[in-house]
Amino acid sequence: MRHFVEELEELKAKLLEMSSLVESAIYRSITAVVQKDELLAREVLTNEARVNQIEIEIDDLAISLLALQQPMATDLRLIVSAIKINNDLERMGDLAVNIAERALDLLHEPIVKPMVDIPHIAALVQSMVRKSLDAFVARDGDLARSVLASDDAVDDLRNASFHELLSFMEHDPRNIRQSMSLLSVVRNLERIADHATNIAEDVLFLAKGIDVRHHAESRV
Amino acid sequence: MRHFVEELEELKAKLLEMSSLVESAIYRSITAVVQKDELLAREVLTNEARVNQIEIEIDDLAISLLALQQPMATDLRLIVSAIKINNDLERMGDLAVNIAERALDLLHEPIVKPMVDIPHIAALVQSMVRKSLDAFVARDGDLARSVLASDDAVDDLRNASFHELLSFMEHDPRNIRQSMSLLSVVRNLERIADHATNIAEDVLFLAKGIDVRHHAESRV
Repeated sequence: MRHFVEELEELKAKLLEMSSLVESAIYRSITAVVQKDELLAREVLTNEARVNQIEIEIDDLAISLLALQQPMATDLRLIVSAIKINNDLERMGDLAVNIAERALDLLHEPIVKPMVDIPHIAALVQSMVRKSLDAFVARDGDLARSVLASDDAVDDLRNASFHELLSFMEHDPRNIRQSMSLLSVVRNLERIADHATNIAEDVLFLAKGIDVRHHAESRV
Repeated sequence: MRHFVEELEELKAKLLEMSSLVESAIYRSITAVVQKDELLAREVLTNEARVNQIEIEIDDLAISLLALQQPMATDLRLIVSAIKINNDLERMGDLAVNIAERALDLLHEPIVKPMVDIPHIAALVQSMVRKSLDAFVARDGDLARSVLASDDAVDDLRNASFHELLSFMEHDPRNIRQSMSLLSVVRNLERIADHATNIAEDVLFLAKGIDVRHHAESRV
């Protein structure tokens, strides 16, 4: 049996591989929407299998670490966090696939005005994803907190886009199908931001032993 | 320190309390949409705090079981499954809140034809939730498998509703706002079904040691 520390390093390395695959899927899916790039959208669909495979590998490794060893408190928290972050990353990968599918729907549509908001929301969401994962690697509580602060900004941008697209549809029913696809992109971005927020909460739990979920900040 | 078996029973009991709260939230939120019942919708919003509180209690208990004891393989799997199912239940509770909010938006809207599909989808989704939790309690792999089979039916119903509501909006832009709220209800139901599917997959993992995620059925 290999040494515990070695297996723990493998777990961390696999989680980083997973996160870089998922970050790349998000980047490609959004670029595919904005630049109407069919090839990038198809790459996201193709790479999903690898994300799904590595999710299973990470869970197996985490469970074997819990089963075969008797991890100390800090390592235990790391392993439980890895199981949760793994789950969030896999869902983010699914959401990138949803966005890539909408990119394919939108390929031959004329570019409409509300599109301008999507790069803005996407940039904010990608920065949240990056920060939540950097915070995990560095166990940086302050960085994780900055992710929580951004989540409200994403919700505001989502609501603004929603109302803009609603007016756009009401103005001319021929805009409805395209607007629905754009709304779906915005909604998937918002859900990716929610998962980045979950990861940031896990980092705070890991870094300081504080459970910040549901505003339970006072608990230690 | 209390006996391991006793704490494990407490974990199971809390998970059942959580699942009954969440099932009730789903039932109330849907009934609030269909029967335009403001009181039921508000109850869902009020009860969210208890769901969030019990989620934290379950996680704390699971982590303390992992930390203070050295669980055997079967118990270990149960505890890891409890952490995952807890997470799925909490998200289902959030989705019921989303539906309750749409119920409030829809309170004073006239009843439109596409509404008829929502009770149909809701009944199927509620049955999936019930079966996934019964399968967990009884470790019943066949019941869990029947949940996986229903997920495709929900996707089909979702797509049919989507296209029906799209035509309805295109036919008369005055229908757009109401249709968007109904679409949101359908989408939230679909996401609840996805979480029931996750729970069923965890049950299969727990019952037979088979990982069925991503069609990895051949793995043992």
